[in-house]
Amino acid sequence: MSFFAGLAEPSDFKITASPVMVPFKSLIQVDRSLSTPVFLQVSDQLGLLIQRGMLLPGQRLPGSRQLATLLELNRQTIVAAYDEGLAQGWLESQSGSGTYVAAHFPEVRPQPLALGDNPLRNKPISSQPGYPVESTAFLHRPVLTQSAGLRLDDGLPDIRLAPMDELSRAYRSYFRWGNPQAHFGYGDTKGHPLLREQLSLHLNETRGLHTVPDNILITRGSIMGLHLTCQILLRPGDIVVTGETTWAGATMNIQKTGALLKTVPVDRYGMDVDALADLCQRNRIRLVFVNPHHHYPTTVTLRADRRIRLLQLAEQYGFAILEDDYDYDFHYLRRPILPLASADRQGMVVYVGSLTKSVAPAFRVGYVVAPTSLIDELARLRRIIDRQGDPMLEFAIGQLFKTGELKRHFRKALRTYHARRDYFCDLLTSELPDTVQFTKPDGGMAVWATFNPTVNMEQLARQASTKGLYMASGQSHNPTGQQLNGTRLGFASSTEDELEQSVLILKKLLSKGSIR
Amino acid sequence: MSFFAGLAEPSDFKITASPVMVPFKSLIQVDRSLSTPVFLQVSDQLGLLIQRGMLLPGQRLPGSRQLATLLELNRQTIVAAYDEGLAQGWLESQSGSGTYVAAHFPEVRPQPLALGDNPLRNKPISSQPGYPVESTAFLHRPVLTQSAGLRLDDGLPDIRLAPMDELSRAYRSYFRWGNPQAHFGYGDTKGHPLLREQLSLHLNETRGLHTVPDNILITRGSIMGLHLTCQILLRPGDIVVTGETTWAGATMNIQKTGALLKTVPVDRYGMDVDALADLCQRNRIRLVFVNPHHHYPTTVTLRADRRIRLLQLAEQYGFAILEDDYDYDFHYLRRPILPLASADRQGMVVYVGSLTKSVAPAFRVGYVVAPTSLIDELARLRRIIDRQGDPMLEFAIGQLFKTGELKRHFRKALRTYHARRDYFCDLLTSELPDTVQFTKPDGGMAVWATFNPTVNMEQLARQASTKGLYMASGQSHNPTGQQLNGTRLGFASSTEDELEQSVLILKKLLSKGSIR
Repeated sequence: MSFFAGLAEPSDFKITASPVMVPFKSLIQVDRSLSTPVFLQVSDQLGLLIQRGMLLPGQRLPGSRQLATLLELNRQTIVAAYDEGLAQGWLESQSGSGTYVAAHFPEVRPQPLALGDNPLRNKPISSQPGYPVESTAFLHRPVLTQSAGLRLDDGLPDIRLAPMDELSRAYRSYFRWGNPQAHFGYGDTKGHPLLREQLSLHLNETRGLHTVPDNILITRGSIMGLHLTCQILLRPGDIVVTGETTWAGATMNIQKTGALLKTVPVDRYGMDVDALADLCQRNRIRLVFVNPHHHYPTTVTLRADRRIRLLQLAEQYGFAILEDDYDYDFHYLRRPILPLASADRQGMVVYVGSLTKSVAPAFRVGYVVAPTSLIDELARLRRIIDRQGDPMLEFAIGQLFKTGELKRHFRKALRTYHARRDYFCDLLTSELPDTVQFTKPDGGMAVWATFNPTVNMEQLARQASTKGLYMASGQSHNPTGQQLNGTRLGFASSTEDELEQSVLILKKLLSKGSIR
Repeated sequence: MSFFAGLAEPSDFKITASPVMVPFKSLIQVDRSLSTPVFLQVSDQLGLLIQRGMLLPGQRLPGSRQLATLLELNRQTIVAAYDEGLAQGWLESQSGSGTYVAAHFPEVRPQPLALGDNPLRNKPISSQPGYPVESTAFLHRPVLTQSAGLRLDDGLPDIRLAPMDELSRAYRSYFRWGNPQAHFGYGDTKGHPLLREQLSLHLNETRGLHTVPDNILITRGSIMGLHLTCQILLRPGDIVVTGETTWAGATMNIQKTGALLKTVPVDRYGMDVDALADLCQRNRIRLVFVNPHHHYPTTVTLRADRRIRLLQLAEQYGFAILEDDYDYDFHYLRRPILPLASADRQGMVVYVGSLTKSVAPAFRVGYVVAPTSLIDELARLRRIIDRQGDPMLEFAIGQLFKTGELKRHFRKALRTYHARRDYFCDLLTSELPDTVQFTKPDGGMAVWATFNPTVNMEQLARQASTKGLYMASGQSHNPTGQQLNGTRLGFASSTEDELEQSVLILKKLLSKGSIR
């Protein structure tokens, strides 16, 4: 039976360059009511014929004129359908001799990659990959979030104070100004030049550092500074020391490198440097992670003699100090303690800071201060992580430094947080005298509150949440897993009225026997 | 000799709680013409006396009233100076019994951390750290930059076409709209919900994927997707396969994990899957990195049969495929080849893409598409790198998807780049027929141009640069270090006029014997 004139009978069917004899007219149906263009309908169905083995590898297809006549379509439609098949790789063209089903097919029945009725198109991606993935259990930590309701958070800024109008204006000026290739092309991995320059001035002025812009790498939050530093300095098996209480962001980054974590006690004067000295005698320490200004989470300041001793130990034993100064800009004493980095004569200190706590977490701007050769290494690593920061954001923050707007904001926020600290500490003393112990912090945005051992912190946090109050249970501060029954209660992000409501919720919950 | 009334003689000097007998009046000088507040001048000089050993650990200081009288200052000034010393940790206060030099000093002479005339304040940070830093030599690669002058770049977009006004408006609306705590607080590590939702729709519509937002992690450029995937999937000693030519961003990320790199040839039909099958028989392959749509750098498309074979090998041997589809949105055939990920039945493919090539490099938005359990792992790792992306940017891009503005931009850019490709290829053919060989690419933003072996590519790139034309020498595309004498010549970012000027500069340089 001949399906159409001019082509041989089915019995001639063989894998050669001979004309094909497939019942195209009955197999290929065009529906002009569909939104899919006709040429795609044709090529999709050609593809299906190949998939179903009705057209075989190496087989020659009819000429475009021939198939057009047969299907009663415009010849250009067939040319387009063939072009599509060529593009998809299912067809091959040999100049002068026509169009063929591609010769290079695996022996097995092919899986269509791009066909119209491919059922795989509608198959959701499986939830589990088909290859083994090693679960990185140490990264499974609760995520602290910023609540829009009542909150005694980890010590976050009050975003309502942030200079949003000025930031928005600075963004707008970036969009309007200058050469787009220079503004929106690839930029410097180390950060926008304006911000590096302004930050260098700010750090020298406020922290007694003596940086030049080349000592500064702009990062996305202080955690990226920490990440890069750990990745560059640490190798599996290296020994790193932190306080017994410390920031989970640091311990996770240390563990990610395969380094071994050792801890020393932290008392009211900060990290126990005698215990550190003992460790140094028995181990080769590679890095010490510390927050001298306000220890995280307990907010204590490292005492002067310990600071000096720490620097001496670093020089003596050749370890690096990773000084994370996450909230330096907020201190309520007349003048804050200068960072270790300001007294570092030998380049032992990598100094990491952030503006996310000073403006708003969404503005992910942090920095690393270090010797230039280390900054170069960190930047090279950063290139393969995210290439560079966000130039709009970095410019906007640089601009706000330059106009003095950011310093005005710091001063305003400092006054506000100072008053909130005093108000909040008075509240804790008057409303929760029997259940909460704390020392008024010299700076920062949170009080370290230790609860009576009878209080079940997890339960308290859960119940507070049902009353509309976010509060962390404090479980993530201790790499050794010891129960602290303490948590950070952030006061900076709440008004006095909100602080009062929050404390009264806690008071009510704590007065019930159930939590004890 | 009594230095001031009411205090004992110097002979009484000893380390006790006795009143001090230091010649404060001659040692402490106040200069009211300085900008430093008087109380800080006093506390700085007290600190110096301690530093110089004139005040000893444990020694009692005169009462504030006493010292105020002595120095002819207001008593509050002395109280403030003492408070400062207490804050700095140099002084200690015992309630009811006065102010003392802190007892806890190391035996050695202390290094001041925060004193006014501290010489360290003015010491620049040393250029080399005092602890050993392992240099990561494999990260030392030339950095490709976006030039504002003439350029035949790596295949970058023309930023002049980008919808900057619309983006700027979207940013502005983000600043103006809604609750600041929710907008500028910590957000979702996986990306802004609007962008994940819009991107899921876009990928399903254009790429034949069937994603839900949970299959998507928003990253900062495709390189971050690559980085996270390599860090989660690879362990030291794992074997990873790439093409012999490939993207340095991929090889550096693979090497960073300690995995071993093996390569297979890439011909005009893409990666040689037979060579890959051979490797699979002899090694346990963990991951194959591939750009099926347009191989980087040579722009060839992986042929249909090889695509199928590659997926089959992945299922058979259990390796992951990292499909980097960096320029899918720009293809000049009627319909592009769908990604491998669209035909992946077993969750073998991690699909990585980016919008930086579609809009502008500064807008660092990329994505990973994968099974949800892997997306969760990647996000957990990202939390310790930079915590989250930029919500303003992610919102703005999501908004432009939603309004259709981004798709209008894609269409406009596609038309423009299509015309530029044709114009540029004609130019190469007519102006450099003897020195440059290339195949017109089906898509993307660059031509892979092979130069006569007599041409010294490094020298050509250098000389072009002196004529105001940026062009890469192509040295970074080959992990095995083999000389290719080829480079990518990007046509998308230049107008036809700029393309013509650029080719004429090359023609002039190549006609000189010196480069050959």
